[in-house]
Amino acid sequence: MLSIQRLELAEARVLIEGAARHAREIGVPMCIAVTDESGNLIAFERMDGGKVTSVTVAQDKAFTAAAARKATHEYNQACTPGNLVFGIHTALGGRISVVGGGLPVEVGGAVVGGIGISSGTPQQDMACAQAGIDHLHRSLG
Amino acid sequence: MLSIQRLELAEARVLIEGAARHAREIGVPMCIAVTDESGNLIAFERMDGGKVTSVTVAQDKAFTAAAARKATHEYNQACTPGNLVFGIHTALGGRISVVGGGLPVEVGGAVVGGIGISSGTPQQDMACAQAGIDHLHRSLG
Amino acid sequence: MLSIQRLELAEARVLIEGAARHAREIGVPMCIAVTDESGNLIAFERMDGGKVTSVTVAQDKAFTAAAARKATHEYNQACTPGNLVFGIHTALGGRISVVGGGLPVEVGGAVVGGIGISSGTPQQDMACAQAGIDHLHRSLG
Amino acid sequence: MLSIQRLELAEARVLIEGAARHAREIGVPMCIAVTDESGNLIAFERMDGGKVTSVTVAQDKAFTAAAARKATHEYNQACTPGNLVFGIHTALGGRISVVGGGLPVEVGGAVVGGIGISSGTPQQDMACAQAGIDHLHRSLG
Repeated sequence: MLSIQRLELAEARVLIEGAARHAREIGVPMCIAVTDESGNLIAFERMDGGKVTSVTVAQDKAFTAAAARKATHEYNQACTPGNLVFGIHTALGGRISVVGGGLPVEVGGAVVGGIGISSGTPQQDMACAQAGIDHLHRSLG
Repeated sequence: MLSIQRLELAEARVLIEGAARHAREIGVPMCIAVTDESGNLIAFERMDGGKVTSVTVAQDKAFTAAAARKATHEYNQACTPGNLVFGIHTALGGRISVVGGGLPVEVGGAVVGGIGISSGTPQQDMACAQAGIDHLHRSLG
Repeated sequence: MLSIQRLELAEARVLIEGAARHAREIGVPMCIAVTDESGNLIAFERMDGGKVTSVTVAQDKAFTAAAARKATHEYNQACTPGNLVFGIHTALGGRISVVGGGLPVEVGGAVVGGIGISSGTPQQDMACAQAGIDHLHRSLG
Repeated sequence: MLSIQRLELAEARVLIEGAARHAREIGVPMCIAVTDESGNLIAFERMDGGKVTSVTVAQDKAFTAAAARKATHEYNQACTPGNLVFGIHTALGGRISVVGGGLPVEVGGAVVGGIGISSGTPQQDMACAQAGIDHLHRSLG
């Protein structure tokens, strides 16, 4: 039997809180999704003004980062025509996202979940995702 | 020009809080989804122990209730073979849900969003959805 | 942080072995799927002569049983027109299966995976799924 | 009437065994899928630690390699903007995979199945797929 570590809801809220705080600082209302280590959604918030398309994109970024244990911007950099990874962006009906803004959440060396942000530029999305992770790590002490 | 009344994130959180409180009282960890009046997700929480299948089902119930402005259990009662509504449950690739547990959220006579609950029996899901709405109405005074 | 118990591959093979043995006894080549507790596939075998449609149906049964923590034949009995559960069979694009033959796999009181069988009658499928679970429990001592 | 040569389950297991052995040698837990000549799944194993996204990607690679009778990395090299093959990666709802790691399985000059590997780099996936095929050819003498 395998023993798996997984984010709980209270920790998912901390991730969202940290990401939302950064989003407010830069003035971009975001969609923020947090999944467990298998890519299944734990919590989601669309800040007032967040984009409708981002509802799904944020979830797909979090899913990809958690379930593939890889940041979506790393997939993005490898997913260029002629590279053998190219085409991964259309897998799973497009549910795999290679747009920057999805990060795996690691605690104690294991991926325990994923966070995905959407509505800003990929750089803004990535910064908010990282802010969420930083906030979680601070809260875990 | 139309002027649309729509739940804000703070109000979506109140809906979730009221639903989750009832879920704890009956001892059933739920997936709780809140959408805006167009059926697009505003907030979601999977309580620790909520079911994986309910992640999507709760969202589809909230979507249906808001976007069709009808409780999913009302669709359920009409969705019987021979009734002209029958078949609605497979529309939109099955995204329309006729399983009890999705309620439109009405404020001031207008549907401003939807709430969908999943992981318990339909009766338990419906009670949690109603508890969320009651909590919102109390908070609005 | 939540700590989750999950079937490992060696245990999934034991489940398949037990189910396949019963399938040979009754002379029906089966498709046999085993998922983890979140519904994600761990192992699959189509016995020579198993049906093509059953490749997906077996996986969907295992997914449903694990992720909803409920036997698919229990959903089947509740999923009748007029019952508030009716419509669940078309959720998740039809990936939720209410056809008999999917069982949650419980060890130590927790659902650690699911097994789904398809190619025979639902009764035959259910018997093979149970045979797999019995074989696992014997192997765990 | 056509007479079709098709992998049997025992041969699919040999393919998986050879691929898994190489995966252990390089220390990367893989998802390994084997389909028949029509692209329908015969057997699948997710090694402990294999990625959730790879459950589907491995199956899609095997499907593509068998059903299109072409290695997925060959599609990848042709699937560049401006080339008339470009766009094939989004066909069948993205089920066609152009990511390296899917190989047709040929015996006696005919494609009798496909093998698809996912969780490593495309190069690692390709090496495991080839190791599976080499193992099968050795076992067939």
